[in-house]
Amino acid sequence: MVEQTKERRSRRSDGEQTYAAILEAAVRLASVEGLSALTIGRLAQDVGVSKSGLYAHFGSIRQLQLDVIDAARDIFGREVFAPGLEAEPGLAQLEALCAAYLSYIERWVFPGGCFFAGMLAEFDARSGVPHDAVSEDQREWVNLLEGIAREAQQRGELRDGIDLAQLVFDVTAPVQLANYYYVLYRDGVVLDQARASIRTAIAAAKPNGVKP
Amino acid sequence: MVEQTKERRSRRSDGEQTYAAILEAAVRLASVEGLSALTIGRLAQDVGVSKSGLYAHFGSIRQLQLDVIDAARDIFGREVFAPGLEAEPGLAQLEALCAAYLSYIERWVFPGGCFFAGMLAEFDARSGVPHDAVSEDQREWVNLLEGIAREAQQRGELRDGIDLAQLVFDVTAPVQLANYYYVLYRDGVVLDQARASIRTAIAAAKPNGVKP
Repeated sequence: MVEQTKERRSRRSDGEQTYAAILEAAVRLASVEGLSALTIGRLAQDVGVSKSGLYAHFGSIRQLQLDVIDAARDIFGREVFAPGLEAEPGLAQLEALCAAYLSYIERWVFPGGCFFAGMLAEFDARSGVPHDAVSEDQREWVNLLEGIAREAQQRGELRDGIDLAQLVFDVTAPVQLANYYYVLYRDGVVLDQARASIRTAIAAAKPNGVKP
Repeated sequence: MVEQTKERRSRRSDGEQTYAAILEAAVRLASVEGLSALTIGRLAQDVGVSKSGLYAHFGSIRQLQLDVIDAARDIFGREVFAPGLEAEPGLAQLEALCAAYLSYIERWVFPGGCFFAGMLAEFDARSGVPHDAVSEDQREWVNLLEGIAREAQQRGELRDGIDLAQLVFDVTAPVQLANYYYVLYRDGVVLDQARASIRTAIAAAKPNGVKP
């Protein structure tokens, strides 16, 4: 998908700047109001481009949605995966990924909070391409964290025999709830609560950690 | 709001059954596709009633949304608050509320998962009546649980000096994530993971619990 986007971008190099500006507006709009609210008409109004001009860029509403998801994935990769994965493999990476996610929420990278947390709630109960994209992205997060936790266990940083899927659930739940409540109340206390939850879950999984 | 609804229902006792059937369809539709997808036209199509017939029942899309939120609150009250609050005040009530919430998700009371978890993600970043309703409902949940946790502490069931808001966050995050993932993957393992998270959080907060 990313490859297709890049190819189209180079074919349309004259309109590249316009394309990027439209896409940015679309991502911002979708993060606040949901991907379903993203119609060609609504976006045309938002960016001051004619509907036919938008169709020339995206071809269809389906393509626009896919391009928006890809653009959001690029942003998430840059803001969360990249800084998280810079840490030392193992436990430090697990902690860094959670910290990067909370920082990305705190810095309002998307004006409506985490784009993918929004997508999760919007498309969990539906079928179709956005639902499948959500499913894929959530599995990617969970699988990445489980792999890192396994590495941490092999390095002796986590106790043998602990349930790694449970640990990943225990660190994912706080970041998700913190995202929704931070956007809802705009109060950083929930980010601190999430950080405390994550610290507790990881501490309990360490070799010298005590299981309550 | 509930009172207004009841008053309107009795004024229209002849159409009460139709009203109830339309409202049920509207709640189900909103739980899957979101409250924003609930247009008079879409609902008319779904229930096979004319648009003008629907307007006679609800007057406006705003009123329809409010009635849907009220109907969902009644259902949540019956399915989660009522069974949860039947338990002995204190820790048993905290545990029973979380268990009732997970059971209500597991039993697909709403076809799109928890109506209020959906609303939370849909309206967290927006302003207006649905956003304010979400904010109120989430605060009601958090305040109720904090009050119960305080009672549990006064009874000596929870350790003095623990952060009750943190405990409520620690039991709320798993139920929320379990809701989204259960709807997304339709796999009960996340409900068990949420139950394990909640047990761990509560165990750690008990007087004899060990802080990891």
